[in-house]
Amino acid sequence: MSNDTFLRALRRQPVDYTPVWMMRQAGRYLPEYRATRQKAGGIQDLFANPELACEVTLQPLERFELDAAILFSDILTIPDAMGLGLYFAEGEGPKFREPVRTVAAIEKLEVLQTSKDLPYVIDAVKLIRKELNNTVPLIGFSGSPWTLATYMIEGGSTKDFARIKTMAYQNTDAMHLLLDKLADSVIDYLTAQIAAGAQAVQIFDTWGGVLSAAAYEEFSLAYMRKIVNGVKRANIEADVPVILFTKNGGLWLDDIADTACDCVGLDWTMDIGVARRAVGNKVALQGNMDPALLRANPERIRAEVGSILAAFGHGAGHVFNLGHGITPDIDPDNAKAFIDAVHELSPQYHQS
Amino acid sequence: MSNDTFLRALRRQPVDYTPVWMMRQAGRYLPEYRATRQKAGGIQDLFANPELACEVTLQPLERFELDAAILFSDILTIPDAMGLGLYFAEGEGPKFREPVRTVAAIEKLEVLQTSKDLPYVIDAVKLIRKELNNTVPLIGFSGSPWTLATYMIEGGSTKDFARIKTMAYQNTDAMHLLLDKLADSVIDYLTAQIAAGAQAVQIFDTWGGVLSAAAYEEFSLAYMRKIVNGVKRANIEADVPVILFTKNGGLWLDDIADTACDCVGLDWTMDIGVARRAVGNKVALQGNMDPALLRANPERIRAEVGSILAAFGHGAGHVFNLGHGITPDIDPDNAKAFIDAVHELSPQYHQS
Repeated sequence: MSNDTFLRALRRQPVDYTPVWMMRQAGRYLPEYRATRQKAGGIQDLFANPELACEVTLQPLERFELDAAILFSDILTIPDAMGLGLYFAEGEGPKFREPVRTVAAIEKLEVLQTSKDLPYVIDAVKLIRKELNNTVPLIGFSGSPWTLATYMIEGGSTKDFARIKTMAYQNTDAMHLLLDKLADSVIDYLTAQIAAGAQAVQIFDTWGGVLSAAAYEEFSLAYMRKIVNGVKRANIEADVPVILFTKNGGLWLDDIADTACDCVGLDWTMDIGVARRAVGNKVALQGNMDPALLRANPERIRAEVGSILAAFGHGAGHVFNLGHGITPDIDPDNAKAFIDAVHELSPQYHQS
Repeated sequence: MSNDTFLRALRRQPVDYTPVWMMRQAGRYLPEYRATRQKAGGIQDLFANPELACEVTLQPLERFELDAAILFSDILTIPDAMGLGLYFAEGEGPKFREPVRTVAAIEKLEVLQTSKDLPYVIDAVKLIRKELNNTVPLIGFSGSPWTLATYMIEGGSTKDFARIKTMAYQNTDAMHLLLDKLADSVIDYLTAQIAAGAQAVQIFDTWGGVLSAAAYEEFSLAYMRKIVNGVKRANIEADVPVILFTKNGGLWLDDIADTACDCVGLDWTMDIGVARRAVGNKVALQGNMDPALLRANPERIRAEVGSILAAFGHGAGHVFNLGHGITPDIDPDNAKAFIDAVHELSPQYHQS
């Protein structure tokens, strides 16, 4: 591969500079993405179509010197394939026509078989790998079981997580049955992405951070641990690094690092220097600039990148990223300033 | 006072049981509150009227064996008194008719004089103290400067804090000018509440947790530190305990505990045993059951209360509370189960 800096950093091997990618780097802040999407129809017409998914995956790499590509898809493909009827209501985010709200509905769900249920994702991964032509690595991904369950039970976005928490605390056995089916589905899904060519995978636990410490272990981390072990066992030869990202999970960093994952993604609330001292050489760290900084000017962005690099300090094991996805209102020039600042300011931290 | 358990716990003095109150204990989950509010008109007709504010403050104490009362008011009284025009849009939460969005608008704002600008709050505190008749202590409160500024700049609730973060990162001097005016206003406001009879005060930093570690120190904690010191200096004789509560502030617990506050409020994401080991004997801790547990049944609530008491362990310095406000959908019987469980299960942790 012409640029394997990202994979080397995930394995805490020496690199010449800190690699960088951005969560949601293929997205609405790019005019070319908006053009493709308008031509296609809706977001579902993009991610369910391997050619278009490939096209938008590659768009940010044509503009910026990114060190990794990430499959363009949606975190809710799994519940959609399970028959919940994903749709996108204007201005309201993703919704399900058939949310899962009863024990009977949970019992009826079948574990996903990616090859049969989500062939378009496999085709997209294969096509993107071919088009990338070994320039930079391709990241596959999935939502975490808890995060998927949140949307499945709530039926869409939520502020208070009332339905899923009531299920977790009142109907704990049913909750675990659902999470276990989702964990098995995610193992199959990520294994299929790896078989198709994904060179690293990330699990997005967007909503684990709304739980108490004990409930996070019980309802979210336990299932991500199962996935890490399942994916590693199914892919011993490929030895594909696994990144776990729990938004607002900083308090539980030690436990996340102990799952056997290769890298922990951090949002911006945790000082990355504090995080590095906590995890030592156990895992690499990914992150962690507040995406809101991208609304400032290039000088302020560069200063923030410099602070984060300095906080992590010298040596390997840092993948630079935002602490959450880039938002649609960002000027692409500011995204470029961010990426270029990482490349320009980081080499000093990798000299021996 | 017939029951000073709450004040003793805040000062880490021995108590017979762990005291308990609930954030938003005077609120919409109580039918008697809804009746008073419907009679009065809107929420503003309640908190701006000392008699009605007193009535709803006392309602939960008539139902439950709470160890403290908290002034019924709104966190946005200060910006309202500064002329921003607070109103409540149905289903959308608080809004301002004149949000503060320019440096000129910030420069024009005047530091609040509570006696002149918010006399109704002083009258409410006096009346509640009289009606409480020294049964349990009365808590006064204010929003933190950062949290107040959030609503003032955004004009209402927000998901991404785009406007205030852009102000903080692009127009940093103006942001600090606003926060400093607010800190001075909060010092005056809390000092006036104490002079009128408040026996403890809490600063609600609802939105400090959306910042990075460095930005939290710069834009939120620095101003809360100024307030703690200002309030303590203005009230040396009264020696009124100050509680700081930053939602999602667990990662910065050490820094919060170092402000000279008496107690740190915790949301439910942090294990209270981990928190106690971190702060040692520096401060008391308040919290921290997830209010979502109140949607479960009394047995599950009791088990969670037991886990939190056990995590804190033996000895003084724990005020039991929820990790955030009680929500309108809660059955008052479950709130009673919560309060009674704290009183029934906690004495074993206070035997010498």
